[in-house]
Amino acid sequence: MRVPIKVRYAETDQMGVVHHSAYVVYLEAARVELLEKAGLPYHELEAQGLFFPVVELSLTYRKPAHFGEVLEVEVRLLELSPRALSFSYRVLRSGEVLAEGRTRHLCLVQGKAGRMSPALLERLRMIQSG
Amino acid sequence: MRVPIKVRYAETDQMGVVHHSAYVVYLEAARVELLEKAGLPYHELEAQGLFFPVVELSLTYRKPAHFGEVLEVEVRLLELSPRALSFSYRVLRSGEVLAEGRTRHLCLVQGKAGRMSPALLERLRMIQSG
Amino acid sequence: MRVPIKVRYAETDQMGVVHHSAYVVYLEAARVELLEKAGLPYHELEAQGLFFPVVELSLTYRKPAHFGEVLEVEVRLLELSPRALSFSYRVLRSGEVLAEGRTRHLCLVQGKAGRMSPALLERLRMIQSG
Amino acid sequence: MRVPIKVRYAETDQMGVVHHSAYVVYLEAARVELLEKAGLPYHELEAQGLFFPVVELSLTYRKPAHFGEVLEVEVRLLELSPRALSFSYRVLRSGEVLAEGRTRHLCLVQGKAGRMSPALLERLRMIQSG
Repeated sequence: MRVPIKVRYAETDQMGVVHHSAYVVYLEAARVELLEKAGLPYHELEAQGLFFPVVELSLTYRKPAHFGEVLEVEVRLLELSPRALSFSYRVLRSGEVLAEGRTRHLCLVQGKAGRMSPALLERLRMIQSG
Repeated sequence: MRVPIKVRYAETDQMGVVHHSAYVVYLEAARVELLEKAGLPYHELEAQGLFFPVVELSLTYRKPAHFGEVLEVEVRLLELSPRALSFSYRVLRSGEVLAEGRTRHLCLVQGKAGRMSPALLERLRMIQSG
Repeated sequence: MRVPIKVRYAETDQMGVVHHSAYVVYLEAARVELLEKAGLPYHELEAQGLFFPVVELSLTYRKPAHFGEVLEVEVRLLELSPRALSFSYRVLRSGEVLAEGRTRHLCLVQGKAGRMSPALLERLRMIQSG
Repeated sequence: MRVPIKVRYAETDQMGVVHHSAYVVYLEAARVELLEKAGLPYHELEAQGLFFPVVELSLTYRKPAHFGEVLEVEVRLLELSPRALSFSYRVLRSGEVLAEGRTRHLCLVQGKAGRMSPALLERLRMIQSG
């Protein structure tokens, strides 16, 4: 899935490009969108006591993005187990890869490490297989 | 009270100055510091169910701030009633005023508009009178 | 003009609502959109050496916004002179006003206070009159 | 070197912890401090046309940080060559590791991939060896 992201002025820095920390927020926006499109709005998961905090994050920056550009974040559900999941990302501008990344998330249930329900896992597997 | 704030690179924008939204976070950091120095750490107030959300904010920007600078935020508790309080601020660089601002806050108790306790009011009055 | 803004998780705070500083970025995104729709992309203005830094900002917060919500920022070009302009804003959720604000901007030409060209003024007047 | 970082309210999210994107800014603040203490203020390097954009970033989050805490970011200059350098980081709270990370940076001279001067390299080697 590709999620459009319009660069905000506040996200630029004095090098004249999008600050590297903004991409972390872009990835988050993209995976939230992916979950939502699959019928799993993250705010509803949280309302049920389910949280997926980021435990690992990596990003490789290849080319800078700029204010005035509309980027696309391609997001895929990469790995899935009852206790954890990971996403991979590519940040694109007109098809060109500006950055690539990955996040890994634990499943927290009511604040403790836990397991997703079979029903949720099934739903996520459908996202994974596209 | 004056609170030193070192400009972070991420707070700059492509105009080469500190983005105007960063000042809002600077003001917050300064009033948190003011409360803490007066023996009222904001995280402890929250732990007691007391919240002071911002309901009004104004800022006037006179001169830009830059990365590499250490600013000072002068903060004063301006108005105080059992249900609300306001702070005034000046953002300074070597004594020169870069920006001035004000915030107004309501008192929420357990999520609803409420009144501060006499003890808390007393404590805040001491901040107010310096 | 109304600009949709989808709340990002990173914009929430531990009160469980959108942090008040995020609205400042929302207003900016909305006025950039307004200018762009009128054929004046802000990044092109900057490329010509024209900058409109914020010199005054005010916001009144009436009700909190939350993650999972899509807001709308209504933006209007309020005042216009060769040397300055101001915008007014309303942040809405399903038509309900969550916040109202205003920003004032100076016109900088090549880094100094300057005047907009008659052509630019004309263009902006068209935005103003809707 | 260890750099103290006081958590800002704006950096928390609705999970009640510091949002994972804030750590990226903490690491940046720490390496800027490291360079400055070694007599290489980053804003002076930039003034000479030298930039060290982040090309790789990784973070592992072990335990959450909270508003009201003062963290320490331990930063080390890990790898150094004329064209690139990398830093490693540990985010600590009272000696406990909350997160670990690494960034890699290219050397840009006047906007293009370039080489650091022998004098700068020498200076950085002194940081590296502590």
